[in-house]
Amino acid sequence: MAADRQERSGARRGGTSYDVARAAGVSQSAVSRCFRPGTSVAPGTRARIIAAADALGYHPNAIAQSLITRRSNLVAVIISNLTNLYYPEVLAELTQQLSERGARVLLFALRSESEIDSVLDLVWRYQVDGAIVAAQLSTEQMLAFAARGTPLVLYNRHSTTVPVASVSCDFGAGSALIAGMVAAGCRAFGLIGGPPDSAVGEARVEGARAELARAGIAPVAVDRGDFSYESGHAAAHRLFAAYHLDAIVAANDVMALGAMDAARIDLAIRIPDDLSVVGFDGVAPAKWRSYLLTTIRQPVRRMTAAATAMLFERIENLDLGPERRFFPGDLIRGATARLG
Amino acid sequence: MAADRQERSGARRGGTSYDVARAAGVSQSAVSRCFRPGTSVAPGTRARIIAAADALGYHPNAIAQSLITRRSNLVAVIISNLTNLYYPEVLAELTQQLSERGARVLLFALRSESEIDSVLDLVWRYQVDGAIVAAQLSTEQMLAFAARGTPLVLYNRHSTTVPVASVSCDFGAGSALIAGMVAAGCRAFGLIGGPPDSAVGEARVEGARAELARAGIAPVAVDRGDFSYESGHAAAHRLFAAYHLDAIVAANDVMALGAMDAARIDLAIRIPDDLSVVGFDGVAPAKWRSYLLTTIRQPVRRMTAAATAMLFERIENLDLGPERRFFPGDLIRGATARLG
Repeated sequence: MAADRQERSGARRGGTSYDVARAAGVSQSAVSRCFRPGTSVAPGTRARIIAAADALGYHPNAIAQSLITRRSNLVAVIISNLTNLYYPEVLAELTQQLSERGARVLLFALRSESEIDSVLDLVWRYQVDGAIVAAQLSTEQMLAFAARGTPLVLYNRHSTTVPVASVSCDFGAGSALIAGMVAAGCRAFGLIGGPPDSAVGEARVEGARAELARAGIAPVAVDRGDFSYESGHAAAHRLFAAYHLDAIVAANDVMALGAMDAARIDLAIRIPDDLSVVGFDGVAPAKWRSYLLTTIRQPVRRMTAAATAMLFERIENLDLGPERRFFPGDLIRGATARLG
Repeated sequence: MAADRQERSGARRGGTSYDVARAAGVSQSAVSRCFRPGTSVAPGTRARIIAAADALGYHPNAIAQSLITRRSNLVAVIISNLTNLYYPEVLAELTQQLSERGARVLLFALRSESEIDSVLDLVWRYQVDGAIVAAQLSTEQMLAFAARGTPLVLYNRHSTTVPVASVSCDFGAGSALIAGMVAAGCRAFGLIGGPPDSAVGEARVEGARAELARAGIAPVAVDRGDFSYESGHAAAHRLFAAYHLDAIVAANDVMALGAMDAARIDLAIRIPDDLSVVGFDGVAPAKWRSYLLTTIRQPVRRMTAAATAMLFERIENLDLGPERRFFPGDLIRGATARLG
């Protein structure tokens, strides 16, 4: 048994490229070319090399290769709040899209935004080919990507201070949604934003406020949560205790679901008859029959495809300008808001 | 502007270890030792080197280092269904725990189990230090890890055919839950399992069947879903159309939530008065006030900590035996089952 283990341990790395070359009757450099993306080897030679590699258990060492090609084929994906129900879908799509382009995901899931400096230190050390970041970066942090020539695409946020490529969902459909609520007679709006340092949350609160201002309405009150169900539930209770509201606009779906339950289960407020509640994101639970939330669905597949494409364009050509792409969201007419 | 970009591009990799050595007045090998884990450098020397490295923007190249240490500090995490609401929490915890031990997560999110062969090919190429796998592996695939000397820990499944380390949640609390339902008078049980090739789903269906058999009850019917809300909703409708049931046991929470909504919203069946519904996992939405699902909560933090600890023990010593750890789940007495 111990001898068996030693033998296995000896075979740990499989054969070398020289072993494969000998078995296939080609030069070592032909073997090396065969496994390097974008180089040409005659089809017959390639077939012989691959057969020999399979037989010998040879797998080209991606890490050593990356020293030659200066490409690690690693892309850092930095996400600030993975347990927010919106991000698993984003991560699943990004992983799929990056994988289709031959890149691997080096994942950094932050528990708090303050972890980002230590994460960036690791990002530099692994010499990733690029990064897709769905977390708050400071101006200095964005400039650090530029200074190191590491392509960066921001996901679901954009910068107005630093020229950096980004993909976001715009608030256009949100404006239409709020206009529809006003047209249906809603006048007393309570807003539930995210934490003060969340650019995504702030953009949505400001978008709602601007659309209400166009209708000559100021929101009755703005409260805040941390994007969780419990925080939306608690914020709604604080709002109901202080104000009479006929509409709640939450900065994400999960807080809107918490607000719905605070209203209809705890306080027997009828939705949408006496209170309209809307969210933003289009997460799976918003469609569940107990909720049927009226919301804005982000086109996650299109947005992740765009982020991936933009990142690879910049890996090929770092000098591409800082394109910012805004996708429209889709208004999902659920059952929780009266719309005029 | 173009010149500015070129300059930045020239600074791409920061200074070299030789630059740092010159600035700190030490040898290059001292710089190299300073940044290699587990080597000793005098504190004063270390401080001078780090100050010089910071000033020059030198970051040790993790990839080149891994060729020297034979450790990549990369751990592959392979997850089969990231949009299953249970896994984001697992992934967030694993990422945190691995990161605390200085390892990075190379993430593979499978859309289907059939992708796993191509994923394993990449796992070998990146020479990960080890892998934590929450996906179905064949006997051959598990043996491939052993043959290459790559430590492997299975998460939420275990092998009875191959000696491999694993962490799972046992069905003990599930048995107690079903015994409680029987004691409260439930007799006509419908089970909703996962796909036939899901070991996790099968273990839970078999666990429920065994506990019912102890009470002299055979389930009325077993239907299947794919762990999604919609599939649980559809399976419940098929069951209700064919049988009169007073209990539904679903193999995960999200299918149980779909079954609940099929019963109470579509068919006005009262829960728990006329029908008890239970799930398994303890995902966040199970606690939402619209559901308050009676379920078994997996101790995710303890399980991920155990998986991480077991993996690192095996990275240090590949010859450790194939320990299998089963954690008890916690019975969450929600509001959806009568319990005796």
